[in-house]
Amino acid sequence: MPHVSIKAPVPGIGGLLATRPDTAQPLMLLAETLLRGPSPLSRGERELIAAYVSERNACRYCADSHGAFAAQQLDGGEELVKAVLADPATAPIDARLRALLRVADEVRAEVTPASDETVALARAAGAEDADLHDTVLIAAAFCMYNRYVNGLGTELPADPDHYRDSARRIVTHGYLRQRA
Amino acid sequence: MPHVSIKAPVPGIGGLLATRPDTAQPLMLLAETLLRGPSPLSRGERELIAAYVSERNACRYCADSHGAFAAQQLDGGEELVKAVLADPATAPIDARLRALLRVADEVRAEVTPASDETVALARAAGAEDADLHDTVLIAAAFCMYNRYVNGLGTELPADPDHYRDSARRIVTHGYLRQRA
Repeated sequence: MPHVSIKAPVPGIGGLLATRPDTAQPLMLLAETLLRGPSPLSRGERELIAAYVSERNACRYCADSHGAFAAQQLDGGEELVKAVLADPATAPIDARLRALLRVADEVRAEVTPASDETVALARAAGAEDADLHDTVLIAAAFCMYNRYVNGLGTELPADPDHYRDSARRIVTHGYLRQRA
Repeated sequence: MPHVSIKAPVPGIGGLLATRPDTAQPLMLLAETLLRGPSPLSRGERELIAAYVSERNACRYCADSHGAFAAQQLDGGEELVKAVLADPATAPIDARLRALLRVADEVRAEVTPASDETVALARAAGAEDADLHDTVLIAAAFCMYNRYVNGLGTELPADPDHYRDSARRIVTHGYLRQRA
């Protein structure tokens, strides 16, 4: 049972957003900006970074949601997402994205600078300032969203289609559409 | 040296905000909402939670900034902030705030639900849903801001008056005023 009463019978972050529209608005504007605004990283790549950070933080709800959003926006679909969440080192992705996922995981794990070694690896694979900035900020942001969802003890969906349904809505309309 | 080039010679998060106004806007809207919007927690209490989480995450820039913002908005001033950052268990604060700081630290440390025991302690001391929600979300948000500031290797201010100057600006104008 969640630690606070939830207005709508919606699992994961959805119930919290419905309960607190005042904080939902900036939280969703940030998600929209980071995951769908201008960036050298594609929307699919950014959702993949979000899903991977959530997986490593053991936030089941966020990993499965953003994994579904990534799958709908990447050529490799669900198989690629599954391979990345299991191990970016062996997943069929390019060297730049592989290095950026390493940067993301370093920032997730410790509140210290990403290592010079990993940043150099990303730069050698073609990453520029904006790739690094956006990767670090997405990783940092999912350290927030994951803690919000898990920290308050929100529930997982009973409906197995939940994540695919959300994915259709998010990929089409983004994070800012009015919630019921 | 930071991992990305910074547009303005401004330490901490300021340089990043100046370099990337696109992401600065939602990040500052979130800070304004969480730390200065409607809440049963006073602005001083919320800045104190932010400073304490940042201290525990060893984010010197955020701990000193939000510590200064808290000090200007709490009766106990700098001495109280210093005592809380050192150890909330012995600081001269009420039982509700002490329990909420424990909730914040649990959420900071692990991406798991705040413990039933600590939540019960907070409720016994008078905390209601909104106190718990806002505490968890502030703690989660500073796990993001701290990682953004430290992860990209931003620099600390050379000027010892930096934090007091920021505090005057933030306490008066909030987080949304246009930056130079």
